[in-house]
Amino acid sequence: MSVSLYLISVPSFQKHLHALDGILDKAIAYAAAKKIAPETLLTARLYPDMFNFTRQVQESCKFAVGSVARLADMDAPNHADTETTFEALKERIAKTLAFLSTVTPEQMEGAEDRPLTIKVGPNEMTFTGRDYLLHFALPNFYFHCTTAYGILRHNGLEIGKRDFMRRT
Amino acid sequence: MSVSLYLISVPSFQKHLHALDGILDKAIAYAAAKKIAPETLLTARLYPDMFNFTRQVQESCKFAVGSVARLADMDAPNHADTETTFEALKERIAKTLAFLSTVTPEQMEGAEDRPLTIKVGPNEMTFTGRDYLLHFALPNFYFHCTTAYGILRHNGLEIGKRDFMRRT
Repeated sequence: MSVSLYLISVPSFQKHLHALDGILDKAIAYAAAKKIAPETLLTARLYPDMFNFTRQVQESCKFAVGSVARLADMDAPNHADTETTFEALKERIAKTLAFLSTVTPEQMEGAEDRPLTIKVGPNEMTFTGRDYLLHFALPNFYFHCTTAYGILRHNGLEIGKRDFMRRT
Repeated sequence: MSVSLYLISVPSFQKHLHALDGILDKAIAYAAAKKIAPETLLTARLYPDMFNFTRQVQESCKFAVGSVARLADMDAPNHADTETTFEALKERIAKTLAFLSTVTPEQMEGAEDRPLTIKVGPNEMTFTGRDYLLHFALPNFYFHCTTAYGILRHNGLEIGKRDFMRRT
């Protein structure tokens, strides 16, 4: 008994992208209630040389799309990073979820030991599909989802672990 | 071809606990160089009702130990949350890594479909071992590692994604 790459990736990405979508709804309501310009939250960051909130959401989407496409040996849809509103970020998440829903477990069969080479900055890194998912894509995805959450928490949005985990 | 619960859990926890240990070394050097009282960083948090840095590290260790013990059907070692220095947090991580190194893949065999019930606040949650790892333990572990990183970044420590990912 063991677990397929599909089960490790797609449902995890779906769950936390839905969670992020719910957090965006709360951010929209918070900005309206407190008369905070949405741009203030969208461009907030934890330190001047870190990515801002908008980019954290975009990176979460990119790691989900890019890793699933690589593991399923498909072309990734090209989603440009043009979002400047909460609503556009919700659309980006919806496009990401729509792509994930088209991928089947069968498309990832055999990817565990297939070598994958990716560019990270100026370097190339080669992994097996399994190590790429477990030690690159998944921690990066959670890193950006968590940092998006942390930026809004730091800016006073009343959300909790329950929102991050999307427990109902 | 697929992936065992052991490979999804133990090497991921080991990698990111080693990364956290390296970040603690940089925090010690930073506090000394900038004459920042270590307590200032150890008790830093992103918002008043969030866990502070020390607790984020403790939670990272607890999710690693607790989940691996549950999946391997072992008693978890009882590591009390008494750390008040960077050095003590490094010892906590060392104890956590020492426990993880005692667990074998064989001990987790068959855990995928075994039901697990855990307490979350006042509630009980029941998962299969697979869902518990993928949709509870792993995202919580990465949540606390990332937030520990984010707190130190927010306080000016010069670390980057490379430190979080422990790329060498």
